[in-house]
Amino acid sequence: MATAARTVTDALESARRASRVLACADRASKDHALERLAELLDERSAELLEANAADLADERAAALTPALRDRLTVTAPRIAGMAAGVRAIVALDDPVGEELERRTLAGGLELRKVRVPLGVVAIIYEARPNVTVDCAALCLKSGNATVLRGSSYAERSNGALAALVREALVDADLPEAGVELLAGDRDELAELATAEGLVDLVIPRGGEGLKRALREVATVPVIYAAAGNCHVYVHAEADLEMARRVALDAKVDRPGVCNAAETLLVDAEVAGDFLPAIGADLTAAGVELVGDGRARAAARAVTIGAATDADWDTEFLDMKLAVGVVDSLAEAIEHVNEHGTGHSEAIITGSEAAAARFTETVDAAVVYVNASTRFTDGFVFGMGAEIGNSTQKLHARGPIGLRELTTSKYLVHGDGQVRGS
Amino acid sequence: MATAARTVTDALESARRASRVLACADRASKDHALERLAELLDERSAELLEANAADLADERAAALTPALRDRLTVTAPRIAGMAAGVRAIVALDDPVGEELERRTLAGGLELRKVRVPLGVVAIIYEARPNVTVDCAALCLKSGNATVLRGSSYAERSNGALAALVREALVDADLPEAGVELLAGDRDELAELATAEGLVDLVIPRGGEGLKRALREVATVPVIYAAAGNCHVYVHAEADLEMARRVALDAKVDRPGVCNAAETLLVDAEVAGDFLPAIGADLTAAGVELVGDGRARAAARAVTIGAATDADWDTEFLDMKLAVGVVDSLAEAIEHVNEHGTGHSEAIITGSEAAAARFTETVDAAVVYVNASTRFTDGFVFGMGAEIGNSTQKLHARGPIGLRELTTSKYLVHGDGQVRGS
Repeated sequence: MATAARTVTDALESARRASRVLACADRASKDHALERLAELLDERSAELLEANAADLADERAAALTPALRDRLTVTAPRIAGMAAGVRAIVALDDPVGEELERRTLAGGLELRKVRVPLGVVAIIYEARPNVTVDCAALCLKSGNATVLRGSSYAERSNGALAALVREALVDADLPEAGVELLAGDRDELAELATAEGLVDLVIPRGGEGLKRALREVATVPVIYAAAGNCHVYVHAEADLEMARRVALDAKVDRPGVCNAAETLLVDAEVAGDFLPAIGADLTAAGVELVGDGRARAAARAVTIGAATDADWDTEFLDMKLAVGVVDSLAEAIEHVNEHGTGHSEAIITGSEAAAARFTETVDAAVVYVNASTRFTDGFVFGMGAEIGNSTQKLHARGPIGLRELTTSKYLVHGDGQVRGS
Repeated sequence: MATAARTVTDALESARRASRVLACADRASKDHALERLAELLDERSAELLEANAADLADERAAALTPALRDRLTVTAPRIAGMAAGVRAIVALDDPVGEELERRTLAGGLELRKVRVPLGVVAIIYEARPNVTVDCAALCLKSGNATVLRGSSYAERSNGALAALVREALVDADLPEAGVELLAGDRDELAELATAEGLVDLVIPRGGEGLKRALREVATVPVIYAAAGNCHVYVHAEADLEMARRVALDAKVDRPGVCNAAETLLVDAEVAGDFLPAIGADLTAAGVELVGDGRARAAARAVTIGAATDADWDTEFLDMKLAVGVVDSLAEAIEHVNEHGTGHSEAIITGSEAAAARFTETVDAAVVYVNASTRFTDGFVFGMGAEIGNSTQKLHARGPIGLRELTTSKYLVHGDGQVRGS
């Protein structure tokens, strides 16, 4: 465990050394460590609950909102959930060593491109202790060393959880420095984000403030997990009953997450039929509606407030939805590309041509035809787990799973080939 | 073409609009534009030579070194070479639309992950007019709009070449703004590198000064093309005749490029046999040798100067080589991982176990067994062309070809699926 006397650089250097060993670890060793971790979570839950109680009893925790306090809280069922998550990762294929390409080059050189771990992955996260276990387990399975920089609010909980991960590593004859936990202050953030040569990737899991702070200082690679200003567009040729089901789900199933819909666009041709119906559904579910003039008129008996310009660019993460009327597929696509954040976008249509145009032209990580935006998720996508959702285009776009925590290496075998004559 | 009155933002915005069209262009249209470009290069070579002559006659060009002047020079054979390069890109498969994954998810959702263009790719390069054509052609084939920021030394040559590319785009009914040329001043660099939402990727092709300047300001994604401090390690079980051929080639075939060897490491067991022989080969070829104490002693009659600490970290890009003796495979690997830049590293050995250990543990884009480091090249690797060589781990590692100029998009088709119950 990091002690007061250790610097961030000390921790990163030991993680770097451990990463060289983890990169060559076989699947059996990594799975052994993960299985042992799951057992330890079960066996030592009393210790974890005690550490968490101390975090919750800290005077700083008294200032947290109920939602943040809930995220900080560890309970017996939540520990069981962490253990189940770790066991699910055991069951996933090891991405390391996967052959991506193979070719025989001129002169008989044998070229292979294989998946290898990134090396040292740093995760910066807020006061959610379960992230400690989730991220350490995903990074370990993909052969990476992990540097965890949690919140100081969760210091004791994270310390207890990271200690179990390290104990599990040792049990599998893997280096305990494969998981390093840092305390949570701002100076460390800058040190982490500029540790070129020691950190291969930083993944921030947290609010926009954290991302902005990182953008300003980071010189090492960062994958920014996404904000999602997601749209559902109801095309003129939509099955309107389907559109009601999907739009309602996209908004209300879990409004506080990044794949929830924030704007509903409706084609002018069907707005008069559709908006009163979906408006009633949404209002009944407790959703506040704001809209443009045409949407407000088309909704008739349903009350839609006046949308501000800012509403079209806002990720409400709440029971609130902006509603707009568009004159065409092209206008809908333009709106989505202008206001969307490139996360998850949906069209509801019976027209294959319209669906093809929408999926081709909308610039987003995931584009849906006749389905809710809520499906964007590493588990649902069959990736087994995820460490976040990328809206950037480079390296990883969409859910970040085990493969996205790897890079590649070309291995070229010859028998003395030279390039010159 | 960019005129004086247009701002960088104007150019980027028109490139962004063009990118939406290029992203959906089919292979036939893109290949049509490329074929027309190759024809235009042939037909209009007189015009290109005239523009280049004006650049060379500019008083600023008089201050260039002979090597830089040579790189700025366009000749009839070089124009023919550009046209041949463009025709080679026509022959390559279109990466856009390639299906990367396909799964049926729970509830019957059909998920596909397909390759799509990045969008707007900006290339920053020095006074080498051929880069204008190479990069525009690669970006076009991969469905991207290109923003070229060349050197002011090559202003007229680049202008004439970019005009041909734009003419070819129009001939294929594609938007001419698919290729935008900027003039070359420092303010533009910062504007480009911070144009979030307008530029999807910046690739700098140039010296360390350019890369440093970009690292300081860039907020958009950058792929840093590589410096190569490459090593050849001669293991105790190497075929020493093979090792002589390979080490000589790795150093002298083309010493000024990033995949040339800069350090030769020799196992202590064979240093006494090997160093006098390879030392004589290298000296005869005109290579200056510097080394550690043991290498200098083992080389006997061959003169090896004393290496400074800095020599082990220097990319000489010249007829100069650092020579070191190591006691073991482990020591060689440690040296390579400490001093290498993660570009191309080679071991010469008859031992499969040693080869496996080296390829597994050396952290580089390309690792060779019994072959010269000089093979790291997009053409040689069967990628058809390259826009540079990445030593970073995210997104692209090794040669950057057409695939590396793409990202992916998940397309999910349903029939009304919702996530909630």
